[in-house]
Amino acid sequence: MHSSRRAETFPVNTPAASQVFTTVLSHGPLTRLEAARRAGLSPAAVTKAVRPLIEAGYLAEDTDGEARPTLGRPANPLRVNGDRALFIGAKVTGDEIIGVLTDLCCRMRVSRHVPLSGPDPRSVLQALTAVVQDLLSEAHGLGAAVLGLGIAVSGDVDRAAGAVRYSPFLEWRDVPLAELASTATGLPVTVDNDVRALTVAEQWFGAGAGLSDFAVVTVGAGIGCGLVVHGRVVAGAHGVAGEIGHVTVDPAGPPCHCGNRGCVEALAGDAAIVRQVADATGLPVADTADALELAHRGVTGAREVYARAGEAIGRGIATVANLLGPERVIISGEGLAAYDLFAEQIRDAFAAAAFGSAARCDVQTRPLPFEQWARGAAATAIQSFIRADDQRPSR
Amino acid sequence: MHSSRRAETFPVNTPAASQVFTTVLSHGPLTRLEAARRAGLSPAAVTKAVRPLIEAGYLAEDTDGEARPTLGRPANPLRVNGDRALFIGAKVTGDEIIGVLTDLCCRMRVSRHVPLSGPDPRSVLQALTAVVQDLLSEAHGLGAAVLGLGIAVSGDVDRAAGAVRYSPFLEWRDVPLAELASTATGLPVTVDNDVRALTVAEQWFGAGAGLSDFAVVTVGAGIGCGLVVHGRVVAGAHGVAGEIGHVTVDPAGPPCHCGNRGCVEALAGDAAIVRQVADATGLPVADTADALELAHRGVTGAREVYARAGEAIGRGIATVANLLGPERVIISGEGLAAYDLFAEQIRDAFAAAAFGSAARCDVQTRPLPFEQWARGAAATAIQSFIRADDQRPSR
Ligand SMILES: [Zn+2]
Ligand SMILES: [Zn+2]
Repeated sequence: MHSSRRAETFPVNTPAASQVFTTVLSHGPLTRLEAARRAGLSPAAVTKAVRPLIEAGYLAEDTDGEARPTLGRPANPLRVNGDRALFIGAKVTGDEIIGVLTDLCCRMRVSRHVPLSGPDPRSVLQALTAVVQDLLSEAHGLGAAVLGLGIAVSGDVDRAAGAVRYSPFLEWRDVPLAELASTATGLPVTVDNDVRALTVAEQWFGAGAGLSDFAVVTVGAGIGCGLVVHGRVVAGAHGVAGEIGHVTVDPAGPPCHCGNRGCVEALAGDAAIVRQVADATGLPVADTADALELAHRGVTGAREVYARAGEAIGRGIATVANLLGPERVIISGEGLAAYDLFAEQIRDAFAAAAFGSAARCDVQTRPLPFEQWARGAAATAIQSFIRADDQRPSR
Repeated sequence: MHSSRRAETFPVNTPAASQVFTTVLSHGPLTRLEAARRAGLSPAAVTKAVRPLIEAGYLAEDTDGEARPTLGRPANPLRVNGDRALFIGAKVTGDEIIGVLTDLCCRMRVSRHVPLSGPDPRSVLQALTAVVQDLLSEAHGLGAAVLGLGIAVSGDVDRAAGAVRYSPFLEWRDVPLAELASTATGLPVTVDNDVRALTVAEQWFGAGAGLSDFAVVTVGAGIGCGLVVHGRVVAGAHGVAGEIGHVTVDPAGPPCHCGNRGCVEALAGDAAIVRQVADATGLPVADTADALELAHRGVTGAREVYARAGEAIGRGIATVANLLGPERVIISGEGLAAYDLFAEQIRDAFAAAAFGSAARCDVQTRPLPFEQWARGAAATAIQSFIRADDQRPSR
């Protein structure tokens, strides 16, 4: 997280406090006893951790209808006081920025789309600043302060350094985005990989809630993967993780922008689909909408491209399942628009390549529009605010 | 863990106690303050956790030479009292059982090899019982009780259920090994996958000590992988994880016992190497020693088999690195005997297939004889004893 000025801070910064807060956020309302059980802490540790959070207004106690002013009755359920603070999340795509204003419970209040004049850092920063200013005015009317900005970008992102190391789709290398955005907006900024940000939202509020091991696979311009192992999102020791798009499916397959051949992304990413459908049909194909239309019309060759794409995705998911054994894999992304064309191949290839009981993994689809990715970015900002990551010691 | 009778138990069973004990075990001697920092706990929680462990003799305090009987001077370093208890670890291979007797610090005291009359559960149980009886007599002379038996078996092992679900090399399906071995030996028994057991030993005492994210890749009869993510060994929601051997390298490659084609194991496992060298040279090849000799003599075709095997292993490791971004990958196993024949190909294939900064992962080799795998099995028994796994709540 990068911050250009002293902002309001969370009143406690112990790992226990972050964990209790996150537990109540995703599972609340919870009694102290339930929160202790779910967070793996003693009830005494929970009671100690929540006191300053209640005093500062971040947590509230439900008082079962009666006017009972006594603070800290252990049986009263705790919940996060959503109105206490606001956060902004932004997802950068190739042609627009989607910004959302959320409350402390990460509930979306307002969303905005702003087109990009270009994918260069300057244009992105300009559009980002416009979105943030707009959402800050909206926040003013809601009467709570905006305490952080999360930005989600595709590619190799170093969250700790606040830098985008390499984003193939934006053609960025080593952009200190957190610093630039913090200077431009005055907010504390968290920058993370977009699929990881979406995975945080799924873990806290989505199809991953309550699971300690699951994966989110996104199909679209790129093929990405967010992994939760032992209850935490995998970031990779050097910032790279979840690169399912570059799992090799066929070493004799088409070249990939990563320098190898036959990667999942080289067979199933948007650009690959467009190119392969054009090649197979001999017709002009401008974008995935064109490719999809040709396949749906049954033009010879177009459907086969989607079938091979589905097989590649299924094999990639099986590789994740064979290495990590997740409880669930959630498939999402714009690519789901073509899901009827490759669902069967994904399932068949997964079943064939999954080893033993790894095949018991629950593979499901879930449409998550870009607002949800932006919401994930807001979740990373909330995460930085409550310091769940920064303060957690490495073991 | 399966236990047929009431055995001596660890005096506390909170997650904090297990964690402090494991921390002191792998990093000790440590002061309470250092232990607290490494375990991510408060000094008060450490002081509370260690008191009963010192009283029961599992932890000891170094008293810097002076005879200072006061228990609990916080500055005195804590260490595990290795002599307090003994454990037995056993690794089952296709033709023998390697058994080791360790102390509570998992230091090896005695090791034994017993040949198997066959790979069936009955023969294995017979040999296992003989090894255990032998080591129990040795333990008698050491004056401490044996508090657990860990057994490491290749394949799909459900540690929680104490069952071997499927072991291709032993041709076992659904063998309740923990129950059988506990009945035969009278000891509490932990059964785990052999590569995972080795990974526990590497995490506590080996090249993985101090790392929160690393992988152990074993090359031999099978190609296995133990993964540590966020400081804990990955077990898989359904018991399968780390199946690097079934990462597809070439969908047009040789058939694999898993039903697919061109898996890493179908190109680089012992049986694959033997078959491919025989095919390439037209000479009789009985085992890997024969194959290795032909390659070292420079017989046409034999070296190429090893080169392709190295490439397959390198691609498999790159897949692990691209998905998880570990700090280090440790390559081990009997297959290291051929390391000079494929080291270059492993490194080249890894470098070519690693995505972005995933290539910065430290790939190193480390010979670990089967005694170390058996020691890993003893480590899993110690782990069960201190209940680090059983008591840790899922989040
Ligand atoms: Zn690629
Ligand atoms: Zn296979």
